[in-house]
Amino acid sequence: MSGDSPAWVNLHELADAAGPKLSAQAAAYFNGGAGDEHTLAANPADWQRLHLWPRTLAPLDGSHTRTMIGPNAVAHPIWLAPVAYQQLAHPEGEVATAMAAAAQSAGMVLSSQSSVAVEDVANAMRTVADPAGDVAPLWFQLYWQPDRALTLNLIQRAEAAGCSALVLTVDAPVHGVRDCERRAGFSLPAGVRAVHLPHGVAQASTLAPLLQAAPTWHDLNWLREHTRLPIWLKGVLHPADAALARTAGMDGLIVSNHGGRTLDTCVSTAWALPRVADAVQGELPLLVDGGIRRGTDVLKAVALGAQGVLIGRPQVHALACGGALGVARMIRLLRDELAVAMALCGCSDLRHANRDLLA
Amino acid sequence: MSGDSPAWVNLHELADAAGPKLSAQAAAYFNGGAGDEHTLAANPADWQRLHLWPRTLAPLDGSHTRTMIGPNAVAHPIWLAPVAYQQLAHPEGEVATAMAAAAQSAGMVLSSQSSVAVEDVANAMRTVADPAGDVAPLWFQLYWQPDRALTLNLIQRAEAAGCSALVLTVDAPVHGVRDCERRAGFSLPAGVRAVHLPHGVAQASTLAPLLQAAPTWHDLNWLREHTRLPIWLKGVLHPADAALARTAGMDGLIVSNHGGRTLDTCVSTAWALPRVADAVQGELPLLVDGGIRRGTDVLKAVALGAQGVLIGRPQVHALACGGALGVARMIRLLRDELAVAMALCGCSDLRHANRDLLA
Amino acid sequence: MSGDSPAWVNLHELADAAGPKLSAQAAAYFNGGAGDEHTLAANPADWQRLHLWPRTLAPLDGSHTRTMIGPNAVAHPIWLAPVAYQQLAHPEGEVATAMAAAAQSAGMVLSSQSSVAVEDVANAMRTVADPAGDVAPLWFQLYWQPDRALTLNLIQRAEAAGCSALVLTVDAPVHGVRDCERRAGFSLPAGVRAVHLPHGVAQASTLAPLLQAAPTWHDLNWLREHTRLPIWLKGVLHPADAALARTAGMDGLIVSNHGGRTLDTCVSTAWALPRVADAVQGELPLLVDGGIRRGTDVLKAVALGAQGVLIGRPQVHALACGGALGVARMIRLLRDELAVAMALCGCSDLRHANRDLLA
Amino acid sequence: MSGDSPAWVNLHELADAAGPKLSAQAAAYFNGGAGDEHTLAANPADWQRLHLWPRTLAPLDGSHTRTMIGPNAVAHPIWLAPVAYQQLAHPEGEVATAMAAAAQSAGMVLSSQSSVAVEDVANAMRTVADPAGDVAPLWFQLYWQPDRALTLNLIQRAEAAGCSALVLTVDAPVHGVRDCERRAGFSLPAGVRAVHLPHGVAQASTLAPLLQAAPTWHDLNWLREHTRLPIWLKGVLHPADAALARTAGMDGLIVSNHGGRTLDTCVSTAWALPRVADAVQGELPLLVDGGIRRGTDVLKAVALGAQGVLIGRPQVHALACGGALGVARMIRLLRDELAVAMALCGCSDLRHANRDLLA
Repeated sequence: MSGDSPAWVNLHELADAAGPKLSAQAAAYFNGGAGDEHTLAANPADWQRLHLWPRTLAPLDGSHTRTMIGPNAVAHPIWLAPVAYQQLAHPEGEVATAMAAAAQSAGMVLSSQSSVAVEDVANAMRTVADPAGDVAPLWFQLYWQPDRALTLNLIQRAEAAGCSALVLTVDAPVHGVRDCERRAGFSLPAGVRAVHLPHGVAQASTLAPLLQAAPTWHDLNWLREHTRLPIWLKGVLHPADAALARTAGMDGLIVSNHGGRTLDTCVSTAWALPRVADAVQGELPLLVDGGIRRGTDVLKAVALGAQGVLIGRPQVHALACGGALGVARMIRLLRDELAVAMALCGCSDLRHANRDLLA
Repeated sequence: MSGDSPAWVNLHELADAAGPKLSAQAAAYFNGGAGDEHTLAANPADWQRLHLWPRTLAPLDGSHTRTMIGPNAVAHPIWLAPVAYQQLAHPEGEVATAMAAAAQSAGMVLSSQSSVAVEDVANAMRTVADPAGDVAPLWFQLYWQPDRALTLNLIQRAEAAGCSALVLTVDAPVHGVRDCERRAGFSLPAGVRAVHLPHGVAQASTLAPLLQAAPTWHDLNWLREHTRLPIWLKGVLHPADAALARTAGMDGLIVSNHGGRTLDTCVSTAWALPRVADAVQGELPLLVDGGIRRGTDVLKAVALGAQGVLIGRPQVHALACGGALGVARMIRLLRDELAVAMALCGCSDLRHANRDLLA
Repeated sequence: MSGDSPAWVNLHELADAAGPKLSAQAAAYFNGGAGDEHTLAANPADWQRLHLWPRTLAPLDGSHTRTMIGPNAVAHPIWLAPVAYQQLAHPEGEVATAMAAAAQSAGMVLSSQSSVAVEDVANAMRTVADPAGDVAPLWFQLYWQPDRALTLNLIQRAEAAGCSALVLTVDAPVHGVRDCERRAGFSLPAGVRAVHLPHGVAQASTLAPLLQAAPTWHDLNWLREHTRLPIWLKGVLHPADAALARTAGMDGLIVSNHGGRTLDTCVSTAWALPRVADAVQGELPLLVDGGIRRGTDVLKAVALGAQGVLIGRPQVHALACGGALGVARMIRLLRDELAVAMALCGCSDLRHANRDLLA
Repeated sequence: MSGDSPAWVNLHELADAAGPKLSAQAAAYFNGGAGDEHTLAANPADWQRLHLWPRTLAPLDGSHTRTMIGPNAVAHPIWLAPVAYQQLAHPEGEVATAMAAAAQSAGMVLSSQSSVAVEDVANAMRTVADPAGDVAPLWFQLYWQPDRALTLNLIQRAEAAGCSALVLTVDAPVHGVRDCERRAGFSLPAGVRAVHLPHGVAQASTLAPLLQAAPTWHDLNWLREHTRLPIWLKGVLHPADAALARTAGMDGLIVSNHGGRTLDTCVSTAWALPRVADAVQGELPLLVDGGIRRGTDVLKAVALGAQGVLIGRPQVHALACGGALGVARMIRLLRDELAVAMALCGCSDLRHANRDLLA
């Protein structure tokens, strides 16, 4: 990466740099939010609005970003969120992203709407050796399918490919009111499709079949019985749902509002995270996504009870700007910012971070 | 409607699209608010500021938007607010609006300042068959008249035309300080007038006669005795007035600040609704209007205790943009957004929506 | 006034219209505030931020704006604040303002820095007959003078001219940090001066003499002994000072921050008024000024415990735009807005207005 | 200073005036903040947001700005913050600043990254006689050095040069995420360097050595034993750290977030000051810096428990605009604003200022 003097020094500049690299339709798809994009804006704003209350003169020798995410010891808590159709951003798509994840020891959650097959993604990760020997887990995200055979097939492919957890998305039984996509007349270009699914994602012309097929708490039993992998639910915002998830034997929760892409004016994830954390009392591991753009945001998320964070849009921006190297640089930059934020807060180990760090 | 690829995908774009379709005077009349338009701005802003706190994995099969408004079982809770002089927006005026309402099973409240006679409006609604067989009620809005004989005549015409309720506006004993109208020098063009009233609406040159003629709680007794129709009061914001309305035998309340057109800096309807709902404790049905622009706003209004909502300015914008088809499309779009919002909140029936949906 | 179709329909437009009528120096003097003009902005903003919570269907027949200000029965509660050097805005200066006040039955507080003699101002008011026979009181504002003989001379002239109260300004022992004046290099043009004072207002080059001459609670005894007129203190914001004023035998208080012209970031008058009102418990009459620009602001001020309001900058803007007719029109417009606001709140008499009107 | 009619009347205009005087790199270095500059913006905003609640008619004769800072009786509480590399702003650098400080009786804290030797700075201060005979203390700021011998050498030089206190910076164990510097590719130009340090400030390429060398509470014992000077800690924001500082025998605290240059989104100093003041209960003297731009800000800081304030960026802006005369004028302007603010609040002595002055 040394040769390219990169034009961006933070994730905001990265988003700007990605602008000219994406087609108008791809930009509408990746960047847009639901409705008037209040939640899209609230996600980053609410992290920024939290104030750090730093401590001084604490011993910092030996500080590190290592932590646990579920049962995984990881080099740092910055993971990649599931993002569909990454070939819209770069010809190598999810393969490039996966190589970056492996190189930076970042866990990756592959979308079931990936434009590259999970087997190829898993292979790509194995080809890249993290110099420090840290493991970068690959998880598989699942949209509940109307057809259980198809769902089962997805699960089995993910297991066979070596994915170490399933992530069931529960906050999108229907497509959000995505005006910018409609305005842009978004459709997938030739050559890009959801390769794990029969015909890409068919947009139902009425809601009724989607509502009929939407997963319920009851369906989790079937899922639990049909995989040996840990199951995380993605899209939980309410403490009552967190409690139900524990009862249903889930292995972890991702506090998420789908990046502000489904229900506009819903609560931000920075607002919801501590409430969900209070509900699970450490009994279920939590991740969070939505609006994380700075190392300080990562530290705040951990202080509020998340084991780690998922990065969505910046992943695509970095992919568009620089392929695998771009994504690797984005992860590294965030991780360095996290290390700086920890030092400036007097925090040498993320496992000691808690709400005392916040004003 | 399929042929016209419409230029707008939400009600904000609809408002923009209506701009060039309206004369400057008509735009000043329909769009303007009182004073510095603080309340005009606060109405939509306060709905948007309420945060939804969605639930996941609830059963959604069989979800629907059907509900009750007073004694009426309706297909959905999105009604049309009384708006005067609709021929300012489209030559067919209230007839076009009524056809759209009937086609979309939306209740319609006809203004007593309608530019089309109530009999013609009622006829238009009857000519349109809702494919689902749902009923679209027609109600008649009443401004109290200095002359009781005239008031009685209006009531009797409304009854004879088949209106199923009267709506007495109580928040406008005098005209608001409508600066934009004064600046535009608004006056009705030739050919548009309030056909139910003797000379259109005469603007008194002093306040005294208006104040003398303003309706009081006492006048409601007379009204109650002179109609067999249910009577709703429109423009109630204070719980104490809600209690008085119950005592006065009213049949329902419309929480409204006249779309921010009368008293500037008065409370927004999103703020007032839960307070009025607390006061009536379900004993009086409530509707609400003012700033509803999204399906999420409709869901929030229902969650806060309204049975339904009234749509004002977007009705005129849609009428200006596309006549009956435009209004029908606007209603449909809002209804679809409502259905999506319900699904994303885990709500399959509006009658289960309550304040738990809000953060 | 009928012939001139006026270009402004509210006080904001009036301020705009006054722009080209004032020299840059006069505009800096009249419009500017202290420091960064936070308080200048907060004064109107804090009135607007208060929300009215209207009542409906109250009897409005016989509504009026009449009220008491101290011992004076007045036609309405809108008075003119003391503003210095009005010949900067119009050649007729305070004489034109006084004629407008008399014509509109508005009390006027003449600045001791008037550019016209108090005798001429008093005469001008007497020449104008209010058609309704209402009295428009003339009060005299006093800046404490280093020389008691001069102070006494001012008092005696005011008494002899027929002023019915003295207003001692207590919030300006030193000149505020008025950057816009300094930037504009403000100085009085030839022909305009404070005619009651020896050499206009000399700007001391150091603070020490001003601080030495600043009035204290102790000086009020002397003042109390040397005039038979009621004494009001202008510039009180703190309840503790209100209590001291009662003990000192003062006759009334004007809650004011000098229009944001002295101490920047001090509390707004809308914020201070209810706290001062709580302290005096009706035992001392209150007026308020600062940022009143709408009839709704006047109603809110009365609801919060003021008997009336003083209008500062709009007085000068109207004077610059239209001389006496301009000022008269400004007062009338505010009074009409007040009457509309009262009707829309269900308030027929200002003496019944209280905090229940506010949300 | 009389000859140059200065272009600026307040510190905001001074900042604007400094723009063209600084190279793009110097401007990035001096003006920039960490991250998205939330804290940079919050520092001044939070002072401005505090509202003064003035008292009237208090005796003001004999008012003055004299106060104590630690054991030092000083003419006023406005001191100069440590700012590195001042030759970037003006060829005379810290010597010019020191002359201004002495002329205006303002204490100065010299940065250990000074571009001029402490001996020369101390000499410059001695050559300037304050006409009033007030003393302007010179303090020496210390960054903890990896090498204790170097630290000791710095301390001994400071002592020998006549510095009367040491200020240990504790909020910057690592460099902040200073994007604007990175974007500008900031590096020191030829001829400007940190003359007290071996090679200027070497930017470590990894964090580990910095973290290893960061000072801890434990290191304070060594420091306490190796100097006879009072030791102040700069960068304390948390009450718990304030308590530890007392236990560690420190002599004073500077509540600071490094001017928003290290940890973005950390608490503002206006927010932290009263909390730290509550913790120390007057047992440790406090100074504060960050965003002080007006005399009213100084008064608020004192009212919240600081003995005085430090001025950072405006010092450099004034130096760039006018050398020693510019800095002197900046201090004088702030001091005059402070005197005006005190008079307008009824405060004749800063030692009587407390939280009653704030709303």
